[in-house]
Amino acid sequence: MHSRKTIMIDLFKEEDIFTHIFVVNENIYNDFQKCSNDLNPLHTNKKFAIRKGFLDKVMYGNILNAFLSYFVGELLPTKEVIIHSQKIDFKKPVYLNDKLLFEAKVSGVYESVNAIEFKYKFFKSDRQIAAKGLIQIGVI
Amino acid sequence: MHSRKTIMIDLFKEEDIFTHIFVVNENIYNDFQKCSNDLNPLHTNKKFAIRKGFLDKVMYGNILNAFLSYFVGELLPTKEVIIHSQKIDFKKPVYLNDKLLFEAKVSGVYESVNAIEFKYKFFKSDRQIAAKGLIQIGVI
Repeated sequence: MHSRKTIMIDLFKEEDIFTHIFVVNENIYNDFQKCSNDLNPLHTNKKFAIRKGFLDKVMYGNILNAFLSYFVGELLPTKEVIIHSQKIDFKKPVYLNDKLLFEAKVSGVYESVNAIEFKYKFFKSDRQIAAKGLIQIGVI
Repeated sequence: MHSRKTIMIDLFKEEDIFTHIFVVNENIYNDFQKCSNDLNPLHTNKKFAIRKGFLDKVMYGNILNAFLSYFVGELLPTKEVIIHSQKIDFKKPVYLNDKLLFEAKVSGVYESVNAIEFKYKFFKSDRQIAAKGLIQIGVI
């Protein structure tokens, strides 16, 4: 017997790759700032950020986690999903208007629990890794 | 010789606890939605969410990661910090206007690399754990 969930999970195969371009533009920066209420000077004060060795104010790392919401909620072959867990390692600072290439690969399909695991990376335009990690979702 | 960073990291002791109340209100929900552009029906369509076994539309899990930005950026004894890595496990759904008690405990102080690790939990008002995880920051 094929349950509906089994059909849904069959949409995912190990090694499947998903890609997307995300741009950290001013609207996204402002919306994240309002959402988080985080006004730390690293993210809001260019002089402070430069004094700390950065090129400009640093974008909130958790904007990349908001992009993961979009990936899971909008870019998969089914909308019937929920996030179980996420991990992110921040490798390089992201600045305003940086364009990030996002690549996620299916690294595990767990039919018994209707779960899928992805390994993902965000690349800067010079191909350096801005961040990488793991995300596990459930098919609901 | 005491460098400035050494002084900063001395602000953190293992077992130190930080707490805060976060409320997932409508403004935060709307700002996160605009930031992420994630319109998945689980987060936007009450009927869909109820059909999937939830009580109402489910709040974006990554709103809790935005709260972690606020924790790191605003609630620590120094503003001179940056996030290195984060992990979050989502345990229970969060709904609009849920009040979450956040507790973070210093679980590691790594002076040689100016890094601090926290274990954190978000509790719902019935003390069930909504989410928990680890966050590692650097003192910059």
